[in-house]
Amino acid sequence: MFGKLIEYQDASPEVRAVYDDIMATRKVDWINNFWKGLANHPATLKQVWDEIKQVMAPGALDALTKEMIYIAVSVTNNCEYCIHSHTAGARKKGMTDEQFSEVLAVAALANKTNRLANGYRMAVDEQFR
Amino acid sequence: MFGKLIEYQDASPEVRAVYDDIMATRKVDWINNFWKGLANHPATLKQVWDEIKQVMAPGALDALTKEMIYIAVSVTNNCEYCIHSHTAGARKKGMTDEQFSEVLAVAALANKTNRLANGYRMAVDEQFR
Amino acid sequence: MFGKLIEYQDASPEVRAVYDDIMATRKVDWINNFWKGLANHPATLKQVWDEIKQVMAPGALDALTKEMIYIAVSVTNNCEYCIHSHTAGARKKGMTDEQFSEVLAVAALANKTNRLANGYRMAVDEQFR
Amino acid sequence: MFGKLIEYQDASPEVRAVYDDIMATRKVDWINNFWKGLANHPATLKQVWDEIKQVMAPGALDALTKEMIYIAVSVTNNCEYCIHSHTAGARKKGMTDEQFSEVLAVAALANKTNRLANGYRMAVDEQFR
Amino acid sequence: MFGKLIEYQDASPEVRAVYDDIMATRKVDWINNFWKGLANHPATLKQVWDEIKQVMAPGALDALTKEMIYIAVSVTNNCEYCIHSHTAGARKKGMTDEQFSEVLAVAALANKTNRLANGYRMAVDEQFR
Amino acid sequence: MFGKLIEYQDASPEVRAVYDDIMATRKVDWINNFWKGLANHPATLKQVWDEIKQVMAPGALDALTKEMIYIAVSVTNNCEYCIHSHTAGARKKGMTDEQFSEVLAVAALANKTNRLANGYRMAVDEQFR
Repeated sequence: MFGKLIEYQDASPEVRAVYDDIMATRKVDWINNFWKGLANHPATLKQVWDEIKQVMAPGALDALTKEMIYIAVSVTNNCEYCIHSHTAGARKKGMTDEQFSEVLAVAALANKTNRLANGYRMAVDEQFR
Repeated sequence: MFGKLIEYQDASPEVRAVYDDIMATRKVDWINNFWKGLANHPATLKQVWDEIKQVMAPGALDALTKEMIYIAVSVTNNCEYCIHSHTAGARKKGMTDEQFSEVLAVAALANKTNRLANGYRMAVDEQFR
Repeated sequence: MFGKLIEYQDASPEVRAVYDDIMATRKVDWINNFWKGLANHPATLKQVWDEIKQVMAPGALDALTKEMIYIAVSVTNNCEYCIHSHTAGARKKGMTDEQFSEVLAVAALANKTNRLANGYRMAVDEQFR
Repeated sequence: MFGKLIEYQDASPEVRAVYDDIMATRKVDWINNFWKGLANHPATLKQVWDEIKQVMAPGALDALTKEMIYIAVSVTNNCEYCIHSHTAGARKKGMTDEQFSEVLAVAALANKTNRLANGYRMAVDEQFR
Repeated sequence: MFGKLIEYQDASPEVRAVYDDIMATRKVDWINNFWKGLANHPATLKQVWDEIKQVMAPGALDALTKEMIYIAVSVTNNCEYCIHSHTAGARKKGMTDEQFSEVLAVAALANKTNRLANGYRMAVDEQFR
Repeated sequence: MFGKLIEYQDASPEVRAVYDDIMATRKVDWINNFWKGLANHPATLKQVWDEIKQVMAPGALDALTKEMIYIAVSVTNNCEYCIHSHTAGARKKGMTDEQFSEVLAVAALANKTNRLANGYRMAVDEQFR
């Protein structure tokens, strides 16, 4: 990777504060590489964590549904890291094997029909607007 | 668009059979343009409908969750037709304005962090595998 | 669009030289908007035309096969202009409605299975390497 | 990967039926990882195989042309597995090194001009509609 | 669009506070549609504005360079709204026609060579790591 | 990879001529894998090198700005090879760690807002046209 993984013991106070909040919020005792990498640029680390904490919290959608949407987007973009980390996150929130397979089947189908609609240049029906 | 929209009265028996099944399954009395366009190639029409009927039916995930995943992928790929049709489909299944905004917020966030993970070349943590 | 469409009568000699070569090579008597737009930056105009002329000429693949590959990529990226211009180009080279529909069906399928392979994180078989 | 590779001897009768059809259709005596992975969700396995069998069979386009379109899309999306498996598939159907290089040159060019058309916001010519 | 454009006079105090900050920061006296649309979900409005304000401010890179990077990404993803708004933003910061054309030429080239590297499956040189 | 890496001593005169020009232009004494791979198809090798030499040379934009735009696009498409090679190229031209992190922060933000604009179907303001 670019930069190095910033471990807790080597981190500045501002980075440690984010790490502490991640561990407290998620009730875990370790920090995954995504955050250790972002810590090379503390402003990005803090900005991204604040956003994830806000956006991924339960709201009108529950936390598991949000994780599954995250997986579907990451699969569409083929982000290996994100597929792994959010699949792990979703499993922790209760996602079953069957649910995971259905997320992939829906994501795959959408990627397919997106191109059929693009290719035939379908006009949006007035009823949908 | 390419080809023309095949209306019910102009459709062959095999196309009509699919149209009838779409209307019966969805409990609607009209056919949207996506299907009228695919009807230019009846084999594709039938194949896509059979898949959508199977994949989008309630299973380990409920039908609304599936529609929201569909929206997130369509937004990622910027398929105008699919964003409109599946947002309409999700609303019909009960999606609120707040839920729609959360789908978009999660999809947007995933598109962002996918690129941060790509850009820093983060290695997948052993704990996630 | 950005810039303006540069018409033949308003074009510089270097732009006219490209326009003349496009019309002679394609045996047409008009210039489509893509080139009139690129003419805002003559170096890009010439570079792109030289490449298209070289790459799209019949070689180990015939010209129609190349146009169909072009359509499949443009559909994947949802480039409206390119879908229209290359579908017109392919039709001129003999593409039938049935062939067009098969191009879209294959492109759609590939977009789908790409995500299934991404999502399940399939390892490449040794036999394929 | 997610799930495990389902080998023939461990497969359920419905999965074996698909495996048997794959081997018979393709005249091979082994199953590649894509199918062994999809077998974690037999409904997806069967759905995808039925579609590939139908869509990739010779029709208005020959089987090799279809494989080359598949490669171009997979290269655009950067699906490592699919690039490998369909390049192997195309070679088996006779694709030469020169043809492979031309597929890539066309796919690369289309990815480039798609962005030029996007960036300059070219309007589609009436002649193309 | 989805939702409606929230005009200043109809906006809640929290939305007005963001609008005021946008106008003050950018030294403009109007609000563009992107913000009026996001105002349907005030939490997203505020989150996105805070991020844009932080990330797009001059830092190690000047503001114009950042706008041009934004254009290149938006062209790659074909986001019509973003191409227009950030091209306008870049012009306001001094981008010339020639610079705009070079942004597009580089973005187009990168989209092309990305696929050549993907397609040939080039291994990263040790010297680059 | 597909094909093999063509080393200088095994290269034809036309390939050597390109290699020599690359080394002279870049003032380096080695050839990276991208070119050794493209050399499997000399016409592509020459075409791509000529384009990169022209497009990436300092013009209305300096060479470092061009490299950073290249990185942002490659990160959006997740081309591992290109991210590595152009990050190395940018560093050689003076890119600092802070600048690299800002390139990624802008690219990530653009990928996010592209989807918000897509998802809400924002209409382009007249003022931007």
